[in-house]
Amino acid sequence: MNIDSNQNHPQGKPELQGSNNRIITVNLAERSYPIIIGQDLFSPELICSYITAKQVCIVTNPAVADYYLSDLEACLKKAGFDYHVVTIPDGEQHKTLGSFEKILQSLIQHKHHRSTTLIALGGGVIGDLTGFAAACYQRGVNFIQIPTTLLAQVDASVGGKTAVNHAQAKNMIGAFHQPSLVLIDTNVLTSLPNREFNAGLAEVIKYGLIADSDFFDCLEQNLDLILQRDPIALSKIISRSCELKAEIVAEDEHEKGKRALLNFGHTFGHAIEAVTDYKIYLHGEAVAIGMLMACHLSHKLGYIENSVASRLGKMLVKIGLPLTVSHPSCSAGAILNAMSLDKKNTSQTPTLILLKQLGCAEVFKTIELDVIRSVLALG
Amino acid sequence: MNIDSNQNHPQGKPELQGSNNRIITVNLAERSYPIIIGQDLFSPELICSYITAKQVCIVTNPAVADYYLSDLEACLKKAGFDYHVVTIPDGEQHKTLGSFEKILQSLIQHKHHRSTTLIALGGGVIGDLTGFAAACYQRGVNFIQIPTTLLAQVDASVGGKTAVNHAQAKNMIGAFHQPSLVLIDTNVLTSLPNREFNAGLAEVIKYGLIADSDFFDCLEQNLDLILQRDPIALSKIISRSCELKAEIVAEDEHEKGKRALLNFGHTFGHAIEAVTDYKIYLHGEAVAIGMLMACHLSHKLGYIENSVASRLGKMLVKIGLPLTVSHPSCSAGAILNAMSLDKKNTSQTPTLILLKQLGCAEVFKTIELDVIRSVLALG
Repeated sequence: MNIDSNQNHPQGKPELQGSNNRIITVNLAERSYPIIIGQDLFSPELICSYITAKQVCIVTNPAVADYYLSDLEACLKKAGFDYHVVTIPDGEQHKTLGSFEKILQSLIQHKHHRSTTLIALGGGVIGDLTGFAAACYQRGVNFIQIPTTLLAQVDASVGGKTAVNHAQAKNMIGAFHQPSLVLIDTNVLTSLPNREFNAGLAEVIKYGLIADSDFFDCLEQNLDLILQRDPIALSKIISRSCELKAEIVAEDEHEKGKRALLNFGHTFGHAIEAVTDYKIYLHGEAVAIGMLMACHLSHKLGYIENSVASRLGKMLVKIGLPLTVSHPSCSAGAILNAMSLDKKNTSQTPTLILLKQLGCAEVFKTIELDVIRSVLALG
Repeated sequence: MNIDSNQNHPQGKPELQGSNNRIITVNLAERSYPIIIGQDLFSPELICSYITAKQVCIVTNPAVADYYLSDLEACLKKAGFDYHVVTIPDGEQHKTLGSFEKILQSLIQHKHHRSTTLIALGGGVIGDLTGFAAACYQRGVNFIQIPTTLLAQVDASVGGKTAVNHAQAKNMIGAFHQPSLVLIDTNVLTSLPNREFNAGLAEVIKYGLIADSDFFDCLEQNLDLILQRDPIALSKIISRSCELKAEIVAEDEHEKGKRALLNFGHTFGHAIEAVTDYKIYLHGEAVAIGMLMACHLSHKLGYIENSVASRLGKMLVKIGLPLTVSHPSCSAGAILNAMSLDKKNTSQTPTLILLKQLGCAEVFKTIELDVIRSVLALG
């Protein structure tokens, strides 16, 4: 993969041919859908062909609305849709059953029918929340993801996992509900705060670690260009990330097997978020720490060289992501306890995704708590 | 169909052969499951083979718990499961997001894993609520329906529709989530209050009206035996009802077409329940009134003889079900307004299921509001 070339791979829809846009298809039989990645994608023609009837509900947050809501509204107005907007306050602490209910309440108030379309315009919180509302309103309605953070673009918006958090555990209440379209406009990343952009890169690096060592090398070599938010580089790393995720999701939509690999770094990460009450670390930051823990553990078990962890550590430092937990509530005991609540667990020991080698992850279910604790103590 | 013979049709599972039990399969590829109908079915061998791991959560209500919880607990204890019980107060007014959250909270508190099994022991409220919790806990876990009312046995427990109500409209928030087993023990009907038993018969009659005129004749001829709760007669009418429902669900799991026919009488019925705040009529009672309205409307449009409505009316009187709305809040205007909110709607006029002939229903989407109003005014 040559990240800084301007090579173009148009596929699929004719209206995009010749443009700098890419289309990746998530293959799920009758629930298949496209991920369209590129610039200047807020066009009525593009969005509106995925809206099934006249009613539309946009769900967004105030920060995103300031930048992009008027563009989306202009599209919908021009195409003659009846739409209304629900605004959820910004932040993971609002990914709750309360916000879910607020969206449903608004759909009922506006008498939305079963043919309605929900559009999630925002980051992972808005996407997960809107997707869950779309999954449950009248037992399932159409929805479109327009992710506006790097993290949501490469992870949350693709694959149909929707959820809200419970005070004691993340994403505990949710559904599988696939969108009909994921629209990734890389222009929106220009307004993304550094901290959020950097957190998103953790998930990009994850794909290299678990599924594509060439991609990992490429990210390492081109980190400066990526951190400068070069549009071509961004488009390429987002495309490759989505492609890797789409392949895994197509093989295992409901996480009976391979899809669990996407949770590399997440059992640790979720626990870190839970014990700090989702207030100290962004999701990608907790995942960054979790991935490093998982690399240390993979090395401790003899699967990978220590160099993988040190290469990852150097990348995280360069990006400005944390390497270890520094918050006082993050004792090894507290993290282990939170891990035992993680929903991936089916046994007494936490289920972990570890690397058998760089670019190849596997599920582990029987790792001794003492061995896990020793890695937590490194933090 | 000869309702009062003692003929036995064992199918499927060998352990049931020779017994007076029947098995109907809901054919949904990898989500297929059996409905087992008979007497004395609370046996560890039978239930436990459908439980996937050690953890079990029973959801029930106090009225049902008094009669049957200890039997179910004895089964689970004997087979060595870890179970706990969540009790939801009795009544449609508790089929809310609040009760849904109570179940989820309890699963989290007891650290239930993704491999857990939820058992709904109760009527339609408990079944719908438990099913929705099972659909959403960790994005979907195993569940078993043990319906304890006639209504739940012939309708709610079969087909995977789960939901909670919203103050303004019934079943507005929910999911499709199939159980792994529906266990219908007709013994539980002996303790069912008359009013609830009678309400359940409305749904039984519905199957005759929409899909099987012989079954309708048979119900009409054997109504005395049925009202005496003859076990053989009950087993047969429940089996035939489940069979007819299973056929429709297998053809159209997600209600894109034919499944809508099951809503015969329900657009009116749901509206009547909504305007009376779910407090005056039982679901089956509202459906009885709604079915009669739908028969009148079908006749008004020239599809059926008036005799169908009068035969139905006579049966409802004999059962003790209401024929018309008598509550002051049930004005034609209020009912029409509630109908416009019904989730089956996709257009300005309510979607209605009407009879083209006895035993054959069809979906109608463009019936003039004035014509509908004239039928409501009969009430």
